[in-house]
Amino acid sequence: MSTPFFLDCDTGIDDAMAIGWLVASPGVDLVGVSTVSGNLDAAGGARNTLDLLALLGRPDVPVSVGAHDFLDHPYSGGAPHVHGPNGIGGVDLPRAAAGPTGRSGAEAIVAAARAHPGDLHLLAIGPFTNLALALDLEPRLPELLGPVTVMGGAAAAPGNVSALAEANVANDPLAAHRVFTAGFDLTMVGLDVTMRHVFEESHRTALLAAGTPGTVAVARMLEFYFAFYAERFGRPCAVLHDPLAAAVATGDVTPALAPRVPVVVDHTDGPGRGQTIADLRDLYQGFPHSHPGGTRVLLEVPGDFAGDLLARLSTL
Amino acid sequence: MSTPFFLDCDTGIDDAMAIGWLVASPGVDLVGVSTVSGNLDAAGGARNTLDLLALLGRPDVPVSVGAHDFLDHPYSGGAPHVHGPNGIGGVDLPRAAAGPTGRSGAEAIVAAARAHPGDLHLLAIGPFTNLALALDLEPRLPELLGPVTVMGGAAAAPGNVSALAEANVANDPLAAHRVFTAGFDLTMVGLDVTMRHVFEESHRTALLAAGTPGTVAVARMLEFYFAFYAERFGRPCAVLHDPLAAAVATGDVTPALAPRVPVVVDHTDGPGRGQTIADLRDLYQGFPHSHPGGTRVLLEVPGDFAGDLLARLSTL
Repeated sequence: MSTPFFLDCDTGIDDAMAIGWLVASPGVDLVGVSTVSGNLDAAGGARNTLDLLALLGRPDVPVSVGAHDFLDHPYSGGAPHVHGPNGIGGVDLPRAAAGPTGRSGAEAIVAAARAHPGDLHLLAIGPFTNLALALDLEPRLPELLGPVTVMGGAAAAPGNVSALAEANVANDPLAAHRVFTAGFDLTMVGLDVTMRHVFEESHRTALLAAGTPGTVAVARMLEFYFAFYAERFGRPCAVLHDPLAAAVATGDVTPALAPRVPVVVDHTDGPGRGQTIADLRDLYQGFPHSHPGGTRVLLEVPGDFAGDLLARLSTL
Repeated sequence: MSTPFFLDCDTGIDDAMAIGWLVASPGVDLVGVSTVSGNLDAAGGARNTLDLLALLGRPDVPVSVGAHDFLDHPYSGGAPHVHGPNGIGGVDLPRAAAGPTGRSGAEAIVAAARAHPGDLHLLAIGPFTNLALALDLEPRLPELLGPVTVMGGAAAAPGNVSALAEANVANDPLAAHRVFTAGFDLTMVGLDVTMRHVFEESHRTALLAAGTPGTVAVARMLEFYFAFYAERFGRPCAVLHDPLAAAVATGDVTPALAPRVPVVVDHTDGPGRGQTIADLRDLYQGFPHSHPGGTRVLLEVPGDFAGDLLARLSTL
């Protein structure tokens, strides 16, 4: 029995690791991918995704180019200082034979949800524009989809693009707000947990040593990503945003603390723009209450996820 | 050598504990008090303050009635469910002979600062309206004042009146924003630390047993406060917002973690209204940087402050 997964992403180096995780995970049936502007533009992200999937032996997965611009403002250039000018650290992957589908990202999400009603797991690791547009196309999407796992936001932790805002949410706060309040069975894997799981140079060299085209490609992308974090952490390493969200989505990571609480997104033009406002007031009482309509917000993920990630990616 | 202190407050049961702390602290010369609407209206807070100071043997301290309304909206009723209808848990204190000064709170703050240039410690444990108005009267106030310590805000912790907003800041976000960005030598004692220090029934009964008019009065006020928290924590107790700020101001509490970082206040009408936006991104790197113009934000206060508080209040 395999579980159908749909991935919405902006590939991106840590997106590449998340794709690797999904491809390497037995029981995951990756039925489609949509891309969105974020780390780079949506078309570039689709190119990277197609090339990587082909390299990993999955040239059959349909990839759709999603939203180039955000709901209420245009895309303005991505994060080449983090992910490199081509989004994957300057690594030149062999060009895949296939091109993207003719569908938009939102159309691809809706079609996949309708093809697997109630069963499709959706993992969204870029800005939430495609998912918000899919809600416009199909208002019943929350009932049609199974669990939705997102990498994004920061509940109690500081932000990474402003004091309180995380990049995926900050890129399109209005779309994120619509997604967080739409009624999905939603799990938020935010900076509260992703910043605490770190891939070290020892992991990277072990991945490189695994020696397959896929492991070598990802390890080489990580050189660029590590250099970005080296300026911040004083050593070459990288935090594991997207692959941790992938591992939560596949059920391989069990959080120690993940209350279900109301979350809204500040999409004003004020100083809190782009932050996820998670109502964690129950924290003061040890989370005795449950908020059935709320988002499951991961606050603590124990264990050696970096080690688990290395082990799984090494099988690529 | 004593240090001149000025207190801005909204007395208030935990304000009463803070006043007790200041009066009981050798080396503290309480030169004046201003009140502001918050837990109750400014006039009622002044009445409570005058009565309590007289009971504690300090009928000489001048008390000024400060702002009734907030900078951009009217006062609308305080927190009688927390502090009782008279603000001090229904306890009837003997009426002090003295009345308030004829000065406004802002005028009193400015006059005290001018009388002790560079030396006056200011402790603000209510909404920040008086201090913002004082800045209007005297733009050089940040240079005239010594250290300013405020009880208010929440940096990484949840709020107490909304998901992210603490009551003092939420009452007058615009005033708080002006105070946090005025250039004071500012220390923020917020929910990050105050929610972690708790007065238990054993402390309260010990305070009652001390048997002086002051200890008995405060212990009786706490009955009401404890009943409010009992609904939340499942046992009679109270968190120590204002007295902890007082103890930080007097130098008796040394935080284990208190980075100096930029803080602004969300005074939009958006979902983050009333929150203190403290830029804690350096947390990810262990706070290696200093932000000279920033606010000292208390994040960890070790030790048995409740025990210290009991010991000091027992000398009243």
